Amino acid sequence: MQRLTLTAEGVRRHGPVTDAVAAEEPLEIRVEGRSIAVVMRTPGHDRELAAGFLLSEGVIASSHDLFEISSCVSSAPEGSAVDVLLRHPERVDMTALTRHVFTSSSCGVCGKASIASAMHTHPPLEAPASTLTDAAILFSLPEKQRAAQPAFAETGGLHASALFDLEGRLLMTREDVGRHNALDKVTGAGLLEGRLPLSGCILLLSGRTSFELVQKALAARIPIVAAVGAPSSLAVELAQDAGITLCGFLRADRCNVYSHPQRLAGLP
Amino acid sequence: MQRLTLTAEGVRRHGPVTDAVAAEEPLEIRVEGRSIAVVMRTPGHDRELAAGFLLSEGVIASSHDLFEISSCVSSAPEGSAVDVLLRHPERVDMTALTRHVFTSSSCGVCGKASIASAMHTHPPLEAPASTLTDAAILFSLPEKQRAAQPAFAETGGLHASALFDLEGRLLMTREDVGRHNALDKVTGAGLLEGRLPLSGCILLLSGRTSFELVQKALAARIPIVAAVGAPSSLAVELAQDAGITLCGFLRADRCNVYSHPQRLAGLP
Repeated sequence: MQRLTLTAEGVRRHGPVTDAVAAEEPLEIRVEGRSIAVVMRTPGHDRELAAGFLLSEGVIASSHDLFEISSCVSSAPEGSAVDVLLRHPERVDMTALTRHVFTSSSCGVCGKASIASAMHTHPPLEAPASTLTDAAILFSLPEKQRAAQPAFAETGGLHASALFDLEGRLLMTREDVGRHNALDKVTGAGLLEGRLPLSGCILLLSGRTSFELVQKALAARIPIVAAVGAPSSLAVELAQDAGITLCGFLRADRCNVYSHPQRLAGLP
Repeated sequence: MQRLTLTAEGVRRHGPVTDAVAAEEPLEIRVEGRSIAVVMRTPGHDRELAAGFLLSEGVIASSHDLFEISSCVSSAPEGSAVDVLLRHPERVDMTALTRHVFTSSSCGVCGKASIASAMHTHPPLEAPASTLTDAAILFSLPEKQRAAQPAFAETGGLHASALFDLEGRLLMTREDVGRHNALDKVTGAGLLEGRLPLSGCILLLSGRTSFELVQKALAARIPIVAAVGAPSSLAVELAQDAGITLCGFLRADRCNVYSHPQRLAGLP
């Protein structure tokens, strides 16, 4: 995590103060030499971010699909691009990848089509047959994550994604100005470390849960997603269809469960 | 604003509860019959969202650039697409518009290039010569906005953008699951109502301020941007270069000012 320290005119009793703000810089992701995306991210963990992004797009499924992933040292400024070389580039439709607008044969798009498209790329998880963890373990996660996220306290400007095991032990945490990026860094790290599928993990999100965040969790096969904030309607619908246990408004003593509560013991 | 009411298993003492969540659905934006974007938004104010999106992209600058903008009634489901017809379609580079990945001649991209690109599309505001409003007026805005944003209180899942005049009177407020969408709805409404440039306005953002949000304010010529949350580093840099007064951490009795404090009276 990098931060820029800027002088801010503080409208406070004690006059001008210095404030630390969260760094945001563009990162270009290139596959086989072609630019496929520019994301506004907090610098750091850029290879992981690119790997997670490509996992979520369905371009790669494991580290075996990668030939090389490297921060471009000749870019100006250094590190502002990540170059990805694939083991089987012929299997990827580069035209579809560089054109992020999808057109449907029918007129218009809808949530149902978005869910079908997400699950076409990433099949649903198996419906849970038994509990995986205890609700009390979920309740303990936000506090553990906050203790491991020092930058947020200083800048107030970062989203966090954290991965825990089913006993509630913190495996990793990543921060970013963008919540999609923070999650891509987590799933990308899992991919690069050969840990996928993350079927023995709980994902904690510091903010709200959108459709795209559930889609990214599905791509990494994470069975339980717990967020401090609220979910959107389409996030709930995708979680229900994709077999993911989705929790929101996670606090130290409670949460709401929007889908597949069977994975959680200790519910009333 | 629409909401979906879903039954949630509530991990609370009183057992299962019903929770309202913020609606998220895809909207396709088409220009001259070509699909240029699919945004995940909260349904409602879709024409405004499309207009604001195209303003920010530099495709249109005022309502005079529009021939017609209509919600596609034949789309399935109805209203899931907006069709935009331009008065001068020959002036728009449709290829650039459908290809959202930009490539630079040099290797890589950087914040400086992003700022230059934003200000190439939208020239900077004139540096402020005198004060426009009082800091005390800024402090009063979040409370006024909250009173006018009932959905957030219910779902906890919506971002808001609100426009005030320089005396602190609320002109409009828009909500969305996406903060970019909420702002596009505000600037798009301003454009469709012929109110641009919004040079006599203050923009209030319910969350954090990213580079793209400052860029959208610049496109609408809004001189003062005040956010309840933190700004990113690139948001601060763009505001400084673009001549925008950017405030963060806005509370009832204080805020931080990151750029061009000359527009604000009542600073210590």
